[in-house]
Amino acid sequence: MSRSSIAVAPTTRPDMHRALSSAVLRGGGVIATDSDTASGLIWADPAAPSAFRSVASTMPSLEWVQLPYAGIEPFDEHLSDQYVWTCGKGVYAEPVAEHALALALCALRNVAAYHAATSWTAPIGTNLLNSRVTIVGAGGIASSLIRLLSPFGVDITVVRRRPEPIAGADRVFAPEEISIAVRGARIVFVAAALTEKTRHLIDAEALSAMSPDTWIVNVARGAIIDTDALLDALETKAIAGAALDVTDPEPLPTSHRLWTLENAIITPHVGNTPQMGLELLAGRVEANVARWLRGDPLIGTVDLDAHY
Amino acid sequence: MSRSSIAVAPTTRPDMHRALSSAVLRGGGVIATDSDTASGLIWADPAAPSAFRSVASTMPSLEWVQLPYAGIEPFDEHLSDQYVWTCGKGVYAEPVAEHALALALCALRNVAAYHAATSWTAPIGTNLLNSRVTIVGAGGIASSLIRLLSPFGVDITVVRRRPEPIAGADRVFAPEEISIAVRGARIVFVAAALTEKTRHLIDAEALSAMSPDTWIVNVARGAIIDTDALLDALETKAIAGAALDVTDPEPLPTSHRLWTLENAIITPHVGNTPQMGLELLAGRVEANVARWLRGDPLIGTVDLDAHY
Repeated sequence: MSRSSIAVAPTTRPDMHRALSSAVLRGGGVIATDSDTASGLIWADPAAPSAFRSVASTMPSLEWVQLPYAGIEPFDEHLSDQYVWTCGKGVYAEPVAEHALALALCALRNVAAYHAATSWTAPIGTNLLNSRVTIVGAGGIASSLIRLLSPFGVDITVVRRRPEPIAGADRVFAPEEISIAVRGARIVFVAAALTEKTRHLIDAEALSAMSPDTWIVNVARGAIIDTDALLDALETKAIAGAALDVTDPEPLPTSHRLWTLENAIITPHVGNTPQMGLELLAGRVEANVARWLRGDPLIGTVDLDAHY
Repeated sequence: MSRSSIAVAPTTRPDMHRALSSAVLRGGGVIATDSDTASGLIWADPAAPSAFRSVASTMPSLEWVQLPYAGIEPFDEHLSDQYVWTCGKGVYAEPVAEHALALALCALRNVAAYHAATSWTAPIGTNLLNSRVTIVGAGGIASSLIRLLSPFGVDITVVRRRPEPIAGADRVFAPEEISIAVRGARIVFVAAALTEKTRHLIDAEALSAMSPDTWIVNVARGAIIDTDALLDALETKAIAGAALDVTDPEPLPTSHRLWTLENAIITPHVGNTPQMGLELLAGRVEANVARWLRGDPLIGTVDLDAHY
């Protein structure tokens, strides 16, 4: 048995199997042709956790399992300290942050509206450069977003539960202070987890603290914004607009008023598309295979006690 | 006469006169009420160079003239070493680079197309993160763009006349090597000056070296791209698309085929809008007034020999 022999299974998603097999090879591994030899297993179908036991049982040398997504819940019944487990945590925040920046720039620079035009029209647009932004949330997406914003010279306010300062943020407010935190922001980015504390955090009161220059960008969960209050703010131009990759309800029904508003930009939850995710997961797999062969610590190791 | 006495003229553009007068005050200057005392003159109307001589002739103490734009051609007949001249060069690169990034992200993330949709549709989009880009040009816009791209982990190829390396670029090619330089690029940014060497630099041959995944983003001058060749490439989907803030002809006539193509995003030369420009110019004026009062070197000094 060689440590370089890595199995990729199951084969139920051929595109994923192919991409992750290539990643194993790029990382310096050998695809296990005999299940007896596999020291590592790259699980290649997030939708097939039930097949795990029968596959793993054919691999007496198995020491390490790489799971495909950030969330490990589907594999709960299999998790044990028989193996080292790694997952996709941290992989998917970057593209969501990129999408948030894309929406913000597209909004401020009026690109979507210009794309709808069929003639050369008047100059409209404001800079993100040197402006003020507020980021609701302080997790992986917020960190990635702060990193992407770093060359823009923006003043950054973060809204988070714990009051500790954050690298790259100019100040931190608590969720209860949301109406202070959004004041003067050109963009309010929503990048928090949906919890009972953040549900409808952006309500009529918070919206009324924003200005007619403020755009809201939501890449987190639709229900963090009170959709009815948002519709009012958009229709009365109390805020400049909303660019939403997530909505409440979601998917947004075709008859919904949000589709009809010029100052609403809707994208269908594509902060991290399956195609992007696969590319990013492949990068993680490549890196982890290379680390495994060298005996270096793996990235995204699952903490079985913390269940994360 | 005091060095702090600064004139702002003419008054033909009240908004500009007001903004630049405020900038003089913020910089620590005093607005000259008596033209005899003015040591500096902030020229406040780019469209009125012909008025320059009569205004300046009333200012016997005048030593320094700040011109409003990067291009100094309209003031050619007045330029002489009688005064120190400064202009807006370098001021306008940052917002243009921001617009280039906005167009690139909007294109890769399919935002403009989604904005045109009226229902929840399938996931489309690719990452700028960790991709390959090519930047045609190595001036102020390219430098600013490289800076804005720095957190994205992109591989950057620059196309420039002189073969010297550039900070932040992974490699440099000559304009003659354009077809090699664009190979494998997810985005080809056009950010060069229009010269006889760059006119139609992006021609049918260069376009054929790009891939069906490549987007072109032009924020420089329309004629750097051969529009007819571009139309062919867009219609045959030989490239993914073009996001153009400048066109040839410009303004783009309403009947032009580019307006009808789904994979062409057109914005009407708004990389730097008058509103943005005035804000940025005011910042430059403020800085230069403060430097003038302290006797520090001014920013954007015109080299009368190099005529730039």
